[in-house]
Amino acid sequence: MAQVKLVNYDEAPAEVRAVFDDIMKTRNTDYINNIWRALAVHPPLLKRFWSQMKEVMVKPSRLDPLTKELIYLAVSVNNNCEYCITSHTFAARRHGLDDAMLAEFNEIVALANAGNRLTMGLQVEPDERFKPKHADTAWSVGKKPAVARKKPKQSR
Amino acid sequence: MAQVKLVNYDEAPAEVRAVFDDIMKTRNTDYINNIWRALAVHPPLLKRFWSQMKEVMVKPSRLDPLTKELIYLAVSVNNNCEYCITSHTFAARRHGLDDAMLAEFNEIVALANAGNRLTMGLQVEPDERFKPKHADTAWSVGKKPAVARKKPKQSR
Amino acid sequence: MAQVKLVNYDEAPAEVRAVFDDIMKTRNTDYINNIWRALAVHPPLLKRFWSQMKEVMVKPSRLDPLTKELIYLAVSVNNNCEYCITSHTFAARRHGLDDAMLAEFNEIVALANAGNRLTMGLQVEPDERFKPKHADTAWSVGKKPAVARKKPKQSR
Amino acid sequence: MAQVKLVNYDEAPAEVRAVFDDIMKTRNTDYINNIWRALAVHPPLLKRFWSQMKEVMVKPSRLDPLTKELIYLAVSVNNNCEYCITSHTFAARRHGLDDAMLAEFNEIVALANAGNRLTMGLQVEPDERFKPKHADTAWSVGKKPAVARKKPKQSR
Amino acid sequence: MAQVKLVNYDEAPAEVRAVFDDIMKTRNTDYINNIWRALAVHPPLLKRFWSQMKEVMVKPSRLDPLTKELIYLAVSVNNNCEYCITSHTFAARRHGLDDAMLAEFNEIVALANAGNRLTMGLQVEPDERFKPKHADTAWSVGKKPAVARKKPKQSR
Amino acid sequence: MAQVKLVNYDEAPAEVRAVFDDIMKTRNTDYINNIWRALAVHPPLLKRFWSQMKEVMVKPSRLDPLTKELIYLAVSVNNNCEYCITSHTFAARRHGLDDAMLAEFNEIVALANAGNRLTMGLQVEPDERFKPKHADTAWSVGKKPAVARKKPKQSR
Repeated sequence: MAQVKLVNYDEAPAEVRAVFDDIMKTRNTDYINNIWRALAVHPPLLKRFWSQMKEVMVKPSRLDPLTKELIYLAVSVNNNCEYCITSHTFAARRHGLDDAMLAEFNEIVALANAGNRLTMGLQVEPDERFKPKHADTAWSVGKKPAVARKKPKQSR
Repeated sequence: MAQVKLVNYDEAPAEVRAVFDDIMKTRNTDYINNIWRALAVHPPLLKRFWSQMKEVMVKPSRLDPLTKELIYLAVSVNNNCEYCITSHTFAARRHGLDDAMLAEFNEIVALANAGNRLTMGLQVEPDERFKPKHADTAWSVGKKPAVARKKPKQSR
Repeated sequence: MAQVKLVNYDEAPAEVRAVFDDIMKTRNTDYINNIWRALAVHPPLLKRFWSQMKEVMVKPSRLDPLTKELIYLAVSVNNNCEYCITSHTFAARRHGLDDAMLAEFNEIVALANAGNRLTMGLQVEPDERFKPKHADTAWSVGKKPAVARKKPKQSR
Repeated sequence: MAQVKLVNYDEAPAEVRAVFDDIMKTRNTDYINNIWRALAVHPPLLKRFWSQMKEVMVKPSRLDPLTKELIYLAVSVNNNCEYCITSHTFAARRHGLDDAMLAEFNEIVALANAGNRLTMGLQVEPDERFKPKHADTAWSVGKKPAVARKKPKQSR
Repeated sequence: MAQVKLVNYDEAPAEVRAVFDDIMKTRNTDYINNIWRALAVHPPLLKRFWSQMKEVMVKPSRLDPLTKELIYLAVSVNNNCEYCITSHTFAARRHGLDDAMLAEFNEIVALANAGNRLTMGLQVEPDERFKPKHADTAWSVGKKPAVARKKPKQSR
Repeated sequence: MAQVKLVNYDEAPAEVRAVFDDIMKTRNTDYINNIWRALAVHPPLLKRFWSQMKEVMVKPSRLDPLTKELIYLAVSVNNNCEYCITSHTFAARRHGLDDAMLAEFNEIVALANAGNRLTMGLQVEPDERFKPKHADTAWSVGKKPAVARKKPKQSR
């Protein structure tokens, strides 16, 4: 049971219905997944996360759709997010993933986890030749006059 | 050494300068952190991540600034992100965190990790009385007529 | 089903009853959560973990109760501990957390995870100005005479 | 550089010196590791964590010292805690771990991570026959009269 | 429900039956766990993972069987892999683990997670004296003549 | 500094040289990465891990080389394995990854982590329609006569 009541279309405010409509139109479906209905309890969050998902996963880019789903799925498997593994394996199958490819995908995820731990456990340091070689310059605002300030509020 | 060359103001395209200017104005500083200079190699990413950070961490909300920084820091410690721990501990100190509070904060993070593992290792199931009680309704687009479709492209 | 049989009051030895009594008295309840009943199979563990929980989470300190619960919850979400997310979301709601705040809290946890991965994936190094500035001194036992020894048993 | 200044013996308050003395006596050394000097900025935390470490890792128990160090090390490798991997590999070597055993240990950690991800990625469910079989009873305070209460402060 | 249909003996191809037969013979059982039946959808993966499991966990080595199971279990608890915790706790009990030892084991896992986070959160650096002291030599193929090459395909 | 002394070609035993030779031949290089030189302290481990890496990452399969590297890299970023991120980003660049694609890749990894945490934190349950639909049959050894046994040694 989700921690919040899943919002349904009829009871949703206009700003939520607008997002639901865009999700259904974008995905050519009349169904809204549980995650979107849960995020709808806080409309600004629903709008932000859907807009990111649409920008990053739906809009055509340098990486093909299946590769993008597999990258998303690799993270979901590593975090053991049952909901995410279920929904993104479903999505990857829509993009052509079959059982043999799914098994191959998971073996790569497993091998990477094994390799990561062998490297971390033995504290092996990166080979110099694999490190980036570019030269960074110190930050400079150039011509822009520095802003006078009392107490900077530096954060990440 | 970052995997990409840190972008500097003078060499940055207009769309990147616009974000850098907003970061400096918002934070009342003339310095741009390494993370933003790295994200600048892909302007759309820089714009999206800064807009999220500004919306979620900078804009006033129900949670106070220090609490928000501590939630962000708790995740960063759990993921052992050195950059993030360094920059967000710095930010939290700007909001009043002192050594004793930092130690107390880390003891809670440590205790939570201990409690999580004891629960997971012994596979203890949630008490019924702590589970949410609301009743969910199945998804329904209500009056909206269902969209006819061949192959839905359902994704997360 | 937990890996161990949950201990009940009637069958519990005196040292376990003493802890159960203290938990019920401290929390003003006559109910003991599953986790404590599970830890009771090994009384020394039950006593240690309850004493830590009481010291760190119950005793008044520099951080307010809700902030402490949110830090604990942030870790639990990151570790995907279902039991812990369920019980501590319940606890946070007792301290005033509502749906909108819970959504805001989770968006910060999500954003921190996103920021952490962007930083880790691009291997961005911490800005010098955010690093601590204090000067450490080498360990010295001062006046205390060094202990003569054959084979030290150094551990963490 | 640690986020807090490492405390030294001469400048430490009596309650911290008492813990430092106990650590040196227990480990038969005149050296205090950085972690203890860092925790010393918040004496209650130093006392609590040392008392747990002494109770769990130092006091003789059902599990032998090397096995305990390897369990601690397995977690440290999984969390990629450089400090912890360094100090506990050192400690494990003191208990007889050699290079071949360290390699074997890390291969088990790697294999477990691989197996975990294969299972999580394919969402394989536990076999009924491996689940615990005991029957749990609902919580009951037995003879103890239930405490009347207004608003219980249930927490984990 | 697993993402792939669990393969049964009768419907399995010869190469899969050969692995199933070896698993049953090696473990003196006529039952095959769900994980093996799932991996069987991709025979090469089934063969590889079983051969690793047999080599690392079954074949006698420097570490005793129970210690190996506890190392595997520590990782499984840390990754919160329900299937793995269930099956390997079962396996550890076969090797003599009882409730008190299981509780002790989990307290070490919990303590290690706590210690790891305290160290990571406070960014404590490893003590020089605990770091390895050996001197590494740069890679050299020695007498072997260097291979002439156009574009090396260096990978991990 | 790695926990074990990196093995060099001249001092390596024949079985290690054989693996080093195969790595150099397979990758058309005369350089051996630190990880392989570290694993060489335990020849059986070196042989097993290289054979897995060669089978899974080098041998042509259903997934293209760059996609395989990105899946491996996604896991490495999630585990924050510096060595692995460095070497596999290098490998991915050899397969055509440029700065913009690397940024896009990391944004997907970041988004997946955000989505995973939102789903886990709000405890959203998988939609029925995304779950696998196949019907599993109970394990049966079919014609094969069940092995008579006293105490099965079931393990994962």
